Amino acid sequence: VRAHDLAREFPIVGLDSDALQVARLLAERRLPGLIVVDSDQHPVAVLPASQILRFIVPGYVQDDPTLARVYGEKHADRLCESLAGRAVRDVLPKDWQRLPVVEADATAIEIAALMAAAHSPVVAVVESKGGKSQNPPMIGAITITDLLERLLPAS
Amino acid sequence: VRAHDLAREFPIVGLDSDALQVARLLAERRLPGLIVVDSDQHPVAVLPASQILRFIVPGYVQDDPTLARVYGEKHADRLCESLAGRAVRDVLPKDWQRLPVVEADATAIEIAALMAAAHSPVVAVVESKGGKSQNPPMIGAITITDLLERLLPAS
Repeated sequence: VRAHDLAREFPIVGLDSDALQVARLLAERRLPGLIVVDSDQHPVAVLPASQILRFIVPGYVQDDPTLARVYGEKHADRLCESLAGRAVRDVLPKDWQRLPVVEADATAIEIAALMAAAHSPVVAVVESKGGKSQNPPMIGAITITDLLERLLPAS
Repeated sequence: VRAHDLAREFPIVGLDSDALQVARLLAERRLPGLIVVDSDQHPVAVLPASQILRFIVPGYVQDDPTLARVYGEKHADRLCESLAGRAVRDVLPKDWQRLPVVEADATAIEIAALMAAAHSPVVAVVESKGGKSQNPPMIGAITITDLLERLLPAS
């Protein structure tokens, strides 16, 4: 099994897409993450759902979750307001340049290794170009569930 | 919004459950993770889908995914065989004692902070006991999608 066998259509968003709308798309479609593309539709990053939480929860609360107790209910309801007016590029983790992307002929173990190393629930699949193209076009994406389904022996 | 408003029934597995069957359950239900309970049905850990990959992909391949190229297709198809005959306790990460669990009266920001800090796509919800019970019973679980849906302002 190769990446092109597993790749399927997947929602993409731009670096300048509205972060709040993107969070809604993640929630509505119940996706583990989204693929972020540049203006040429080349994949440049994965935005996992967990990153939205890391963006909206203040850093000192993440460092010490017991501090969350000081927040009132009303304040919590406005957590997502910090996404309003922000672009996807503002919400991405600082090390987003390490894009989990595989070429179309990548093997299952290559995909699994990359997903495990990148702690990413989804990887982008791009056309194989023999390593010549800097920016090959995207042909789809593979979620961790897609991969597990395919790797598991028949019961 | 409190944890008990968001908690819903969620598949649980035991520490001694068969790892291969558990991987199948994750894939079939397209879940981001499973709650692991002890023999008294108290939640003791979360097993995220990504942990299955970390277990089946050899460590040196995770450290350097380019080494995955040396694996033939046939070998890749047998990756999941390493799960056969293993129990869930064998597959859990070494630091699994840090269970993402919240009490029923936890606020949305507490849940978000814990999920972000634990990098967990799901948290277990247990009865509130004023901190007196060492092992309160579980009333359900909350996924990251459930939480985002509830936190996002109406469009």
